[in-house]
Amino acid sequence: MSADFVERNTARGDIATVNAVLKQRFGERFSTAPAVRQQHGHTTSWIKNQPPEGVVFVESTEEVAAVVSICAEHNIPIIPFGTGTSLEGHVNAPEGGISLDLSKMNRVLAVNTDDLDCVVEPGVTRKQLNEYLRDTGLFFPIDPGADASLGGMASTRASGTNAVRYGTMRDNVINLTAVLPDGRILKTGNRARKSSAGYDLARLLIGSEGTLGIITELTLKLQGIPQAISGGVCPFPTIEDACNAVIQTIQYGIPVARIELLDTLQVKACNAYSNLHLSEQPTLFVEFHGSDAGVAEQAEMFGEIAKDCSGGEFVWTAQAEERTKLWQARHDAYWASLGLRPGAEGISTDVCVPISRLAECVTQTAADIKELGFIAPIVGHVGDGNFHVLVLVDMDDAEEVARAAGFVSKLNKRAIAMDGTCTGEHGIGQGKIPYLEAEIGHGVDIIRQIKHVIDPQNIMNPGKIVPTRDKASST
Amino acid sequence: MSADFVERNTARGDIATVNAVLKQRFGERFSTAPAVRQQHGHTTSWIKNQPPEGVVFVESTEEVAAVVSICAEHNIPIIPFGTGTSLEGHVNAPEGGISLDLSKMNRVLAVNTDDLDCVVEPGVTRKQLNEYLRDTGLFFPIDPGADASLGGMASTRASGTNAVRYGTMRDNVINLTAVLPDGRILKTGNRARKSSAGYDLARLLIGSEGTLGIITELTLKLQGIPQAISGGVCPFPTIEDACNAVIQTIQYGIPVARIELLDTLQVKACNAYSNLHLSEQPTLFVEFHGSDAGVAEQAEMFGEIAKDCSGGEFVWTAQAEERTKLWQARHDAYWASLGLRPGAEGISTDVCVPISRLAECVTQTAADIKELGFIAPIVGHVGDGNFHVLVLVDMDDAEEVARAAGFVSKLNKRAIAMDGTCTGEHGIGQGKIPYLEAEIGHGVDIIRQIKHVIDPQNIMNPGKIVPTRDKASST
Repeated sequence: MSADFVERNTARGDIATVNAVLKQRFGERFSTAPAVRQQHGHTTSWIKNQPPEGVVFVESTEEVAAVVSICAEHNIPIIPFGTGTSLEGHVNAPEGGISLDLSKMNRVLAVNTDDLDCVVEPGVTRKQLNEYLRDTGLFFPIDPGADASLGGMASTRASGTNAVRYGTMRDNVINLTAVLPDGRILKTGNRARKSSAGYDLARLLIGSEGTLGIITELTLKLQGIPQAISGGVCPFPTIEDACNAVIQTIQYGIPVARIELLDTLQVKACNAYSNLHLSEQPTLFVEFHGSDAGVAEQAEMFGEIAKDCSGGEFVWTAQAEERTKLWQARHDAYWASLGLRPGAEGISTDVCVPISRLAECVTQTAADIKELGFIAPIVGHVGDGNFHVLVLVDMDDAEEVARAAGFVSKLNKRAIAMDGTCTGEHGIGQGKIPYLEAEIGHGVDIIRQIKHVIDPQNIMNPGKIVPTRDKASST
Repeated sequence: MSADFVERNTARGDIATVNAVLKQRFGERFSTAPAVRQQHGHTTSWIKNQPPEGVVFVESTEEVAAVVSICAEHNIPIIPFGTGTSLEGHVNAPEGGISLDLSKMNRVLAVNTDDLDCVVEPGVTRKQLNEYLRDTGLFFPIDPGADASLGGMASTRASGTNAVRYGTMRDNVINLTAVLPDGRILKTGNRARKSSAGYDLARLLIGSEGTLGIITELTLKLQGIPQAISGGVCPFPTIEDACNAVIQTIQYGIPVARIELLDTLQVKACNAYSNLHLSEQPTLFVEFHGSDAGVAEQAEMFGEIAKDCSGGEFVWTAQAEERTKLWQARHDAYWASLGLRPGAEGISTDVCVPISRLAECVTQTAADIKELGFIAPIVGHVGDGNFHVLVLVDMDDAEEVARAAGFVSKLNKRAIAMDGTCTGEHGIGQGKIPYLEAEIGHGVDIIRQIKHVIDPQNIMNPGKIVPTRDKASST
């Protein structure tokens, strides 16, 4: 066993002192009210509520640095909180400590139209940014299901339906500012669109889930709004046929902006929830961005590929209204699915495999779902090989919860065995820790070493990504 | 001063012992011949030759691990070597040690056409890979000037003319395998096209210039060869006008594949060297990828933008032969420039700024060149805001060399002051160390901390990126 595990910090200081100092400094912007703590200790996940011991609402990088310094002095954990929409227990406080709520840091600081970039505080949400950009002809493409904060999206390396064309948060952050565990403020670089200047510290922070520092500012790439957008749907007799159409679309170099798979159950749910009349079969939702002629050409080429892959009628439109209705239905898939089993909770899990293995992975997973008797629709950002299963679970039925946990475990191991990852976009948090070592081997040691050297007190979101071990268990 | 600087390792072992062990194990594949050592201690740069004490030609990951273990045991530096085409003294051995030549590790291990990826050894060069892919309909887009090795390109976070459309090495490596300083073999992940599983260790290694480990395998994204490619040239009265055309091209969302600026002197040099007849003015070379209709439309849109920006006649062609001649001339710009002052050496430097500052940065730099009396053509990957100056220097004239060094220093500081970087694609090596702290501040400490924890003996390419300090100077 490596000596570089992250030890449980047994020298935690007195939370009462920290709470008193924070109360004095932040007044009404600091709370220990149980409801506020509960709300900050839990997201949509089957991981139990683990409330922090206090919540502070910060408004500037300097305030974040002050909170970090206070907590560092007393050896108290700090858990960053954006919108609380992550899915693997990222914002919970398993070791107690202070939740640092960044939602009030929600200013757009600059939009540089000539450079196609903008500078934002971490509490700005993706929808808020696009609303702000409305009159500039620019947009920010990354769209996870929730209207998440951009700081949180960077922290979990989020993506969404547009990633197949525009990349993930990894590709769309130019630089970032973060408060380090010792209270120092780090800016990872300037606004050049590319750089070979030293280790890629921005990429190190992106996806580190608050375990190395607190992101307090982001410079993001923006895209020009395309002249034309067209979209459509196409049903397929089988998952394999739909996946083959995706593979060919990518191979032919069609610059598809979105290509989403819904399985039959998900189509049923969307029909019911969003008043659609789609054929209840595995279905691809696609969207094309470009010039008027370009999107027409892309749609035509896709239509031919779909036909070759036994697809049904490909219905497409460049009408904004129809398109919006369709994509709203796709974005409402989560809520639609909950309607399949009223009263149940929806547990969302996320894997990603090479696209050549996608059909096999989805089909085996669907067989598991059937065998286990779950109601669990599947949707996927299939251009990237990424898909989600929403398992509808009665959380009061311990046997059922255990069965669902077994299903999720099997799915994650299957994805890794198929040369894929246990998480394409949700992150490790607490929920995916059991699979990380199977996926990256020694990489876990390197992560521990980096975590330990940058945050030797283990105060930054402890217990996430890097398992904390009791000292006794390491000998 | 942080305690986490990288100390000069004063406990280096006996090189004679290491050489003897390597000779015994590798036989003819180990050399201490002065010519071989000289060749491995120098690249195109004004940094003096710093030969290693031995050169070993490895053929597998296991052999790399064996060399690293031997060197680690004796505390001897290891410097990875691909094609020796880097520009900032990356492969030199300022502290002696063993040059690890990876050029014999040049097998393409797999091409997964359905997944648009391939697995290669680090010694495969970019041209070799594209030659190998010829019959697959796929290509690898990253093209630095030299026919560099893919391992070296990953290590310096290289890019080239296609980066504006296809990204840099940062964006095109899916996973990599590296031998760590303790001889362990790390694989950073699987073949999923995106992942949120823990710290982004691939991105940490990419651009780390061999200071954290030796890359021994890479999984790379591939692209479908576009149905049609068209290209052309357009002269402009001023650098500003050309830059404005670039900004508008990007803003209008034209998916330009290449957009390169040549200043008047560079155009003159190319006319002479490549037998072209271009108007001797600032000129943009452009290339479009897409369908037949798509590239025609892109060329038409670009032509209109160029006209709006006072551009001269935009001549474009979809004929492969004419296009190839043009781009061959662009790729030969370095050799063409050397012809401007026979006998002089060409010192290439590289900066990158936000595109809104590009015209200003290039114009001020051109004024410096004039004032200092240099012959120094400028070429740029201007879609990214990245440009190079090739200063033609008589290396035997100490005053002139000092003047050139002053020019380079001023250029790097100007780029950083304009919210840019001291290197868009060449890397830090030894030559850019003086500018790194001005650019990323505390980031240098974080880099040192990571370097120190992963390579506590400082045996991995010491003296690159992270300055090595004598212990005495740190107190």
